[in-house]
Amino acid sequence: MESSSQQRTTLALLQQKASSDSKDNLQRTLCAAKQAAKRGAQIICTQELFATEYFCQSEDHANFDLAEPVPGPTTVAFQEIAKEQNVVIIASVFEQRAAGLYHNSAAIIDAGGELLGIYRKMHIPDDPLYYEKFYFTPGDNDPGFCAWNTKYGRIGVMICWDQWYPEAARLTALAGAEILLYPTAIGWHPAEKESEGDAQHAAWQTIQRSHAIANGCFVATVNRIGLENSTDGDGLEFWGQSFVAAPSGEVIAEAGIGTEEILMAELDMTQVTEARTHWPFLRDRRIDAYEGITCRFLD
Amino acid sequence: MESSSQQRTTLALLQQKASSDSKDNLQRTLCAAKQAAKRGAQIICTQELFATEYFCQSEDHANFDLAEPVPGPTTVAFQEIAKEQNVVIIASVFEQRAAGLYHNSAAIIDAGGELLGIYRKMHIPDDPLYYEKFYFTPGDNDPGFCAWNTKYGRIGVMICWDQWYPEAARLTALAGAEILLYPTAIGWHPAEKESEGDAQHAAWQTIQRSHAIANGCFVATVNRIGLENSTDGDGLEFWGQSFVAAPSGEVIAEAGIGTEEILMAELDMTQVTEARTHWPFLRDRRIDAYEGITCRFLD
Repeated sequence: MESSSQQRTTLALLQQKASSDSKDNLQRTLCAAKQAAKRGAQIICTQELFATEYFCQSEDHANFDLAEPVPGPTTVAFQEIAKEQNVVIIASVFEQRAAGLYHNSAAIIDAGGELLGIYRKMHIPDDPLYYEKFYFTPGDNDPGFCAWNTKYGRIGVMICWDQWYPEAARLTALAGAEILLYPTAIGWHPAEKESEGDAQHAAWQTIQRSHAIANGCFVATVNRIGLENSTDGDGLEFWGQSFVAAPSGEVIAEAGIGTEEILMAELDMTQVTEARTHWPFLRDRRIDAYEGITCRFLD
Repeated sequence: MESSSQQRTTLALLQQKASSDSKDNLQRTLCAAKQAAKRGAQIICTQELFATEYFCQSEDHANFDLAEPVPGPTTVAFQEIAKEQNVVIIASVFEQRAAGLYHNSAAIIDAGGELLGIYRKMHIPDDPLYYEKFYFTPGDNDPGFCAWNTKYGRIGVMICWDQWYPEAARLTALAGAEILLYPTAIGWHPAEKESEGDAQHAAWQTIQRSHAIANGCFVATVNRIGLENSTDGDGLEFWGQSFVAAPSGEVIAEAGIGTEEILMAELDMTQVTEARTHWPFLRDRRIDAYEGITCRFLD
């Protein structure tokens, strides 16, 4: 397994507002991907479940109709762009794997259009207005966390709730990923925003910056914007602020809270080796003493 | 294993400047511990290797004479204070375990004076001016990361370089620790301070805040201050800035860069349960998919 020989990689993160019109969401996202490619993007990543509003705010069997297989219409559409524009695309999909079996997935499409693989979200949340355990079976790929060699570098993909787990980032980095990409849908409960909002956003950004630091790699997170499903001040206000962190943990690109953006970032891939030799954490891991990590609790 | 029934715990972190006079360093630290107790501290933590200057800036066999056994004069002196003042003390010690066998250790002393145990630093750095692999054998306690029930709560202790490893924090939290304490000695190379200093400090604080977030526990880090071993602008400038992070990741107490301080922090221990239920990361860990963590690299 070799590091990418490419010295610079240009990322584009597609931060958008979703509407209730799935066809329109897809068309706008395809259009944004093309625009990103024309601006020089080499790796393009969508936000989580970009094709729909964040339907997990309620448990409704009708929402299973929003799912599609992989490969399927969405991945085929992105494969065409990947081929036409010679770009790598990570496209989030609500995947129907079989009747009654659904995943929160991301398709990894290489420049040239090949569907390299699919990541199925491993950690599934279930919290007020984030009722994902109703919809999504936790990923069971083996290994669950992995990396893909693309034309523009070796990358890893995780999804949203995964971003709170250092184990997930570590395993993906150990598999050789030098860029960790996180399609995401996270926002504020409007009633909590004033008292808790800043701390919640800070925690979210902090733990993802820590994955960059711990693993000496880039981290890129794509979040949606907009208030969805609000009546009388409830619903979720997605906080945008998609960002890219360098292996030092420094934020090198960041989008706004409420603006649709194609967030571009040029990554100097030599920083991976520099960070990992100057802060040689991988050298000193105590792999003889970590077996307890596979326990639920050490009681 | 129960959580502490105590609702509030008062910490004191002893941030100091070391001199070349070991007896004086010990006396000043004992005095600071007493002062902290009189101010209401219940758990008191020293900085790493407080009894000496940071001698690991060079590889010198004469420095092994600075080591002492555990129990030994230093732990006995702190045990007396722990008994007299009814406080828990975490005291860093350069430990001689046997002839030619040394550890970078911390003694955990309960209120009442009992030596509860000893933590031996698991991750040992070796970088320019931090030549620790010359001096310290990596810890081999089994388990290497653990927690101790003290009068004032269940705590875990790690040391400096350990703070860069999410695995260490996770294992200590899984062992039941609700406060992670890190005696530390970290600073700037003066030649790098202007260009890299802010980013280095930010990375250090960020990854430790991330341990609080990932594990829903408190993190407390004690660092030394002062420029040591400098001739012609070299040496190390220790950056102080000892701090305490809440389970939300928020910094609730922070010392200055160049000031000797007894940093006090009152911890609301109910925040541990609140954080862990509102951000239920422990609920959803994929322990079936983490076994690769015990590998060096997944190549």
